[in-house]
Amino acid sequence: MTQQDLSVAADGPIATSPLDQVIGYRLRRAQLHVFQQFMDHFAELELRPAEYSTLRLIGDNPGRKQSEIAEILGIKRANFVALINGLDQRGLTVRRQQPGDRRSHALYLTPHGEAFAHRANQVQADFEAHCVERVGGTAARDQLLTLLERLGG
Amino acid sequence: MTQQDLSVAADGPIATSPLDQVIGYRLRRAQLHVFQQFMDHFAELELRPAEYSTLRLIGDNPGRKQSEIAEILGIKRANFVALINGLDQRGLTVRRQQPGDRRSHALYLTPHGEAFAHRANQVQADFEAHCVERVGGTAARDQLLTLLERLGG
Repeated sequence: MTQQDLSVAADGPIATSPLDQVIGYRLRRAQLHVFQQFMDHFAELELRPAEYSTLRLIGDNPGRKQSEIAEILGIKRANFVALINGLDQRGLTVRRQQPGDRRSHALYLTPHGEAFAHRANQVQADFEAHCVERVGGTAARDQLLTLLERLGG
Repeated sequence: MTQQDLSVAADGPIATSPLDQVIGYRLRRAQLHVFQQFMDHFAELELRPAEYSTLRLIGDNPGRKQSEIAEILGIKRANFVALINGLDQRGLTVRRQQPGDRRSHALYLTPHGEAFAHRANQVQADFEAHCVERVGGTAARDQLLTLLERLGG
């Protein structure tokens, strides 16, 4: 076979079947798709999924350490610092130093952040209803969550 | 309430329950967990999930355009170029310019890349068996894949 033969472009559909049975590959595809739809839904609020989860956790748990919230969300420290800096700059969150522990910062929503989180929770409820419908209803959703939990989700 | 009161650290378990019912949040957690386990399994081969998928797709579809493989995997162009550069530098893949289309590169495995992909496929088969067991067997796996497909996975 000559170099010329080797260089002829292949065409037709790409064979993906071996990957299509791979749980991790399919999980990642679904996650990317759902996140893309999330960002479309949240375009007006300019909120990414990790930012939404962070606001939600801080709102439900005011005064927790930055490191605790990062760990729950599985976000690396450096990435979480950048994320919180962004929320701070938008006036949504505020860090307060813990008395007696200068290295530790507790996280709170600002009053503006609380109003914003309220709107975000409404958008999320609407988006979640869309996801539940897509997956086949609440029974199918529960089944999915059970299976994901077995995988550490 | 004084500033001092506000600054007292909260403690005890963090309330995550509202997020625990969110499909996207749980998908992301499961995906991160499975990817972490993948990387543990592939530590010796030093292969990340997207690199494995790329080698697999190129091996099954030699001569396809870089842009086609990137699109199938949902990887952004700049990130995919970096990924392919890494595989090239390890001697696993090679790019060949298409005759008559200087901007388009077709992807191939090198002979070393083929031997490496063979080993990687064996490690992946072993890891997949572990995932299937975790999720509750092949019937549960099929159920999961069906639900993920409804979400675009």
